[in-house]
Amino acid sequence: MSKKLDLVIFGATGDLCFRKLLPALFELEKGGLLNELERIIGASRTDLSPEQWRNDMTRTVPGVDTSSPHWQTLLARMDYVPVDSANNSGFTALAERLTLRDNTYIYYLAVPPSIYGEICAGLHIANIVQSDSRVVLEKPLGRDLASCQLINEDVAKVFVESCTFRIDHYLGKETVQNLLALRFGNILFEPLWNNHYVDNIQITVAESLGVEGRSAFYGETGALRDMLQNHLLQVLCMTAMEPPPSLEGDAVRDEKVKVLRSLRLFKPEEIAKHTVRGQYAAGTIEGEPVCGFLEEQGFANFDMTETFAAVRASIDNWRWAGVPFYLRTGKRLAKRQSEVVVEFKNNAFALFPQDHQETSNKLVIQIQPTENINLRMVNKKAGLSDQLKLQTVNLDLSHSQQSDFKRYAAYERLLLDVFRGNQTLFMRRDEVEAAWAWSDSITDSWDEIGLKPKAYPAGSMGPNAALALPEREGRSWHE
Amino acid sequence: MSKKLDLVIFGATGDLCFRKLLPALFELEKGGLLNELERIIGASRTDLSPEQWRNDMTRTVPGVDTSSPHWQTLLARMDYVPVDSANNSGFTALAERLTLRDNTYIYYLAVPPSIYGEICAGLHIANIVQSDSRVVLEKPLGRDLASCQLINEDVAKVFVESCTFRIDHYLGKETVQNLLALRFGNILFEPLWNNHYVDNIQITVAESLGVEGRSAFYGETGALRDMLQNHLLQVLCMTAMEPPPSLEGDAVRDEKVKVLRSLRLFKPEEIAKHTVRGQYAAGTIEGEPVCGFLEEQGFANFDMTETFAAVRASIDNWRWAGVPFYLRTGKRLAKRQSEVVVEFKNNAFALFPQDHQETSNKLVIQIQPTENINLRMVNKKAGLSDQLKLQTVNLDLSHSQQSDFKRYAAYERLLLDVFRGNQTLFMRRDEVEAAWAWSDSITDSWDEIGLKPKAYPAGSMGPNAALALPEREGRSWHE
Repeated sequence: MSKKLDLVIFGATGDLCFRKLLPALFELEKGGLLNELERIIGASRTDLSPEQWRNDMTRTVPGVDTSSPHWQTLLARMDYVPVDSANNSGFTALAERLTLRDNTYIYYLAVPPSIYGEICAGLHIANIVQSDSRVVLEKPLGRDLASCQLINEDVAKVFVESCTFRIDHYLGKETVQNLLALRFGNILFEPLWNNHYVDNIQITVAESLGVEGRSAFYGETGALRDMLQNHLLQVLCMTAMEPPPSLEGDAVRDEKVKVLRSLRLFKPEEIAKHTVRGQYAAGTIEGEPVCGFLEEQGFANFDMTETFAAVRASIDNWRWAGVPFYLRTGKRLAKRQSEVVVEFKNNAFALFPQDHQETSNKLVIQIQPTENINLRMVNKKAGLSDQLKLQTVNLDLSHSQQSDFKRYAAYERLLLDVFRGNQTLFMRRDEVEAAWAWSDSITDSWDEIGLKPKAYPAGSMGPNAALALPEREGRSWHE
Repeated sequence: MSKKLDLVIFGATGDLCFRKLLPALFELEKGGLLNELERIIGASRTDLSPEQWRNDMTRTVPGVDTSSPHWQTLLARMDYVPVDSANNSGFTALAERLTLRDNTYIYYLAVPPSIYGEICAGLHIANIVQSDSRVVLEKPLGRDLASCQLINEDVAKVFVESCTFRIDHYLGKETVQNLLALRFGNILFEPLWNNHYVDNIQITVAESLGVEGRSAFYGETGALRDMLQNHLLQVLCMTAMEPPPSLEGDAVRDEKVKVLRSLRLFKPEEIAKHTVRGQYAAGTIEGEPVCGFLEEQGFANFDMTETFAAVRASIDNWRWAGVPFYLRTGKRLAKRQSEVVVEFKNNAFALFPQDHQETSNKLVIQIQPTENINLRMVNKKAGLSDQLKLQTVNLDLSHSQQSDFKRYAAYERLLLDVFRGNQTLFMRRDEVEAAWAWSDSITDSWDEIGLKPKAYPAGSMGPNAALALPEREGRSWHE
């Protein structure tokens, strides 16, 4: 019989806990998937009784029917311990709760990375990290390679890598995993998945929200570090990696890290050509006027912070040499939309010249606002026209025949994988560090030449320079 | 301004005329596509007045609203001349009708091929074959290469090849043409369309009908000559041909004839291994008992006639070397079904071993009973299972987004192409003769070793030997 699990959530009074983790736990409980989970112990600096925490959570948790027996089942497992890592207080009390039973402890650090180190140290001193204890880390892990290494080092003093789960919730998305199934479950794509047949790959993570409600932390971080370095690169890895020898955690991550290390680093002299840095000005979102970034409460001083970043990336390996990867992400864009677009080359020869336009094949992996995978193909337009006429059809490759399936949120998938000890969908230390090394080559170059963000109106798709990135090479962003 | 057309239908009192040609003309008229067609002149041995012929046709034509103005428009163009080619009588009367105007004459020979020669001779003598006069020939053109050459020779004395339209109505099917659009309009298929990625190709033309209502002609012909030599080989050509340099008639037919000439000829010593000859015995079709072939009225003596033929064909060229083409056709089979199945190889490596079965990609081009093109792919089964689970999805590649299109019958397409003078979908002389040369290698081998048809129960899918044809090689017919 496998050991039972105890989940300790640091940051138990924070946003992530009640907005993401508890709803995910509730769904897993509803699905009968939490039989191994014995206790959920909240921990934070706030001095609350377990009763108060349970009441607070019941009051604030969104999307959960708190009158249902499943929530009651969760509540019955929920405990709370005040812990202040800055003062190393509360760990002993936590230890007393935990060591009542011989369970596997899982520490979920839903707190800023700056205090990962002191929490890990506190756990270590209280002697509640065992060889099978796991730790879950949220992004961003640092703001550059150096700071990331420090954090990883602090965590590694206490937890081994095989028990360290670095979350990027984009990897929990159904369509991102479906990408693996499509690439390696069909013979149709893999022979074409290279620079002979792929013209370019585009990854967009667009938000329509601004920074409202986000702390000054964003002002110090910016779009490149906040989104592109992690979400976009993770999706890029899943798209570009070589076929792994198995789906086991390290096999997949070995391939991903190879992609990250093959990303061409940028130099200051070419950075303005290959990257775009933007900052939203006042504009209109869905008919409503919105203010610019510098007018947002508390952001007046962040004129050098980008709220938009676009990069023309290159992967220097045999498969992708010569294929541009266009990445872009930003706030206050026209719409919320995350997608990967694999645009295939035109046919070697245009047998149907009248329809040459718009007929290249495209695979569109949409992650937000809905998850979906579409393949753009052409077929014959039915009818009796003299010349054979083509038309475009969009095929749904994702869930055509799955009308009855339940859509699981990314956190449900990822929490369950933590409980199962499956690391495939989590970032390994060398991955995160390789991602920072590449990202540093951009931010360092920006700093060196003093590249200021270009203004773009809220509600647009970023600065014109971002549109020019592919257009300059005869390509276009997929719309 | 282009010349007007006169269509002369020989066999004007026969099945083909009222069951296929007139309904097709009616639909074309409804679609406003017959503006160039001035007259439709029926010709046959029967001594009818034009009025009688029009009345007969109005009474018997199926699927046509004969009270509609479109039918009245057709009737107004319909004329009739009794012609008896055996006695070379009536051609002068026909000539008198035609030469009233300076039109392009189109002679549709909806009569047995045995009298093609005398009709052509009669037209020639009456001096009503001009340099732009066209002739339309129905299959089967002979019963072997020698007889086919004789027929072609007789026709060629009177009509040039560029005015000779040999019909195989399978080429008029929307899905068969869509095969061209899919193969050469998308970059996704062509790189995979060869022996590296295709495991085998299957072509099935199954009928549930027996020979009831067919003349003793079938007894002398059999399934191989009646169906496989023409319909199945034509579909095979469209599937297997190299990309043509254009869609112009001779460009496409050059490629088709190359395929036919690359078909490996059979020798008597291997014929029993690579072909199956069957004849239906009594059985059950859709719950109804039906008699065997030899019990059918007038077929008692045809014990050496096959009503089923299956062939494992090989195309000896660079693209298809090593890929078996399994062909089968027959009467009194379990259901009416015509389809081409391109079965791709398994993935080079089974990354998802638990789902290895049934996950090879398949492109299924269904021609009857409905026209459809499906691609079998796999994707991720939605959900939270520990291992990534695959599932099969069937994508509709043909008419996904064409809910409002009108399905044209094959004869409408082909008649229109005759009127337009477009030969792309018609068989050229060298094509038909190459098909017979291959077919002869089968029938000659059968004769030489005296291979008798194997009995199969009506309502089955043919003799067990036909199932064994792919099974022996570790493959299966697509069901």
